[in-house]
Amino acid sequence: MKTEHLISQIRQKKSFLCVGLDTDLDKIPAHLLDDEDPIFAFNKAIIDATHPYCVAYKPNIAFYEAYGLKGWKSLERTLEYLNVNHPEIFTIADAKRGDIGNTSTRYAKAFFDTMDFDSITIAPYMGRDSVEPFLEFGDRHTILLALTSNQGAFDFQTQKVGDRELYKEVLATSKTYKGSERLMYVVGATKASFLKEIRQIVPESFLLVPGVGAQGGSLQEVCKYGITKDIGLLVNSSRGILYASNGQDFAQVAAKKAKEIQGEMELELAKLP
Amino acid sequence: MKTEHLISQIRQKKSFLCVGLDTDLDKIPAHLLDDEDPIFAFNKAIIDATHPYCVAYKPNIAFYEAYGLKGWKSLERTLEYLNVNHPEIFTIADAKRGDIGNTSTRYAKAFFDTMDFDSITIAPYMGRDSVEPFLEFGDRHTILLALTSNQGAFDFQTQKVGDRELYKEVLATSKTYKGSERLMYVVGATKASFLKEIRQIVPESFLLVPGVGAQGGSLQEVCKYGITKDIGLLVNSSRGILYASNGQDFAQVAAKKAKEIQGEMELELAKLP
Repeated sequence: MKTEHLISQIRQKKSFLCVGLDTDLDKIPAHLLDDEDPIFAFNKAIIDATHPYCVAYKPNIAFYEAYGLKGWKSLERTLEYLNVNHPEIFTIADAKRGDIGNTSTRYAKAFFDTMDFDSITIAPYMGRDSVEPFLEFGDRHTILLALTSNQGAFDFQTQKVGDRELYKEVLATSKTYKGSERLMYVVGATKASFLKEIRQIVPESFLLVPGVGAQGGSLQEVCKYGITKDIGLLVNSSRGILYASNGQDFAQVAAKKAKEIQGEMELELAKLP
Repeated sequence: MKTEHLISQIRQKKSFLCVGLDTDLDKIPAHLLDDEDPIFAFNKAIIDATHPYCVAYKPNIAFYEAYGLKGWKSLERTLEYLNVNHPEIFTIADAKRGDIGNTSTRYAKAFFDTMDFDSITIAPYMGRDSVEPFLEFGDRHTILLALTSNQGAFDFQTQKVGDRELYKEVLATSKTYKGSERLMYVVGATKASFLKEIRQIVPESFLLVPGVGAQGGSLQEVCKYGITKDIGLLVNSSRGILYASNGQDFAQVAAKKAKEIQGEMELELAKLP
């Protein structure tokens, strides 16, 4: 998907919400467990109910991988359901992959060819030749980890490399990668004020912001420091939407939660010139 | 597998060779492509032929993931074949995973519970709470990326963080993680002289050394700087063994190559006091 299509979807739906599909058999409503594919059944119901209020879905690949072949099958079905029924929606494989060149090419093939995701999250530790194979795919996006929302982010990401923090070094260096116009970045919302400095390095790039909701962080803060004239933000919520109810009404309650967030986003978008 | 079992296997076989299973349908012998599962057929033949000369196998997960469900099925069959027929052999999921705590727990479950690998490679960028969930599994090992063998290693890993390089900071910091006695480290052989300094930080840890063979690097150099009284090394070769021949004799030629490397390793082990 081209970035301009993502932007026009955001303007149309007045939302830059991404719904994280961290689907967990221990948390989904009990009545779904009798389904032959409870993970897909849950995802389908969530998608059917929430798609008017969001512009992206982000399956967290670990949750599918944990169930082995069965989980991968559920993931494939979920993505196919999205691509057939809602081709305008941006899909993110939250996979945190990254390896030497010829291996990264395989991961890119897995998520962009074998499956048909619009984007994938990538860890930057191995540098240029671990990232560029993903950037070779036209109209696909590579979402590089910059500053994550967990406590461990302070182990290395915020350490000074020369005169700036490692995550800023990642942002700046990655701009020199071939195909960098298709880079987006993961920036945790728990440190929204950092967004101001991040915007000095990547003034226009899309930022995927986890950590609004269950992981803490305020939408208003994120927008204050991070929004651009073309929005430039995807804000994710997973558990706060998926597991708002675990009764028969889970999908309706999820939709209500998603709509609430969309409403807040609409207010923020209205502030744009 | 306990580390002492790995060490005693190394002493018995006089080898610390790890065979990387980077199985590629474009490179395996054509006559295997008629098999209902060519990837497994290739892996089985390689394992049958090379297991006397190596102590570990390391499937590169990207190569399986690239083929979707079919690839995951081949991976599961390969691991099961190893665990049933060669339970003494150390298995490494070369997966380069890592995410926030509850997600890393899922990846750990995928590779240690759903599948039954002895170890997994992990990227350190997200810090402590992305690594510790893997370390919670007793008798399993977490192999943390320190210094990789690719050109991109110079983007971030060798940058100075304070008074030492980032990869040294990763080594030192990770020693404070809970369960760190089950940590091993990936250290690229293309920079064997760096092993001397690495051994000052992790004097006894096992190091997984890729990059001997196709990626360059000399076994003698690696041993000179990296070997410990309990060996402390696993040296990987993938393409140099797997694709030494693509004829009917591929498995015998692979065995010959593996035996050659085992012979060199035997010489190095003989130098130990």
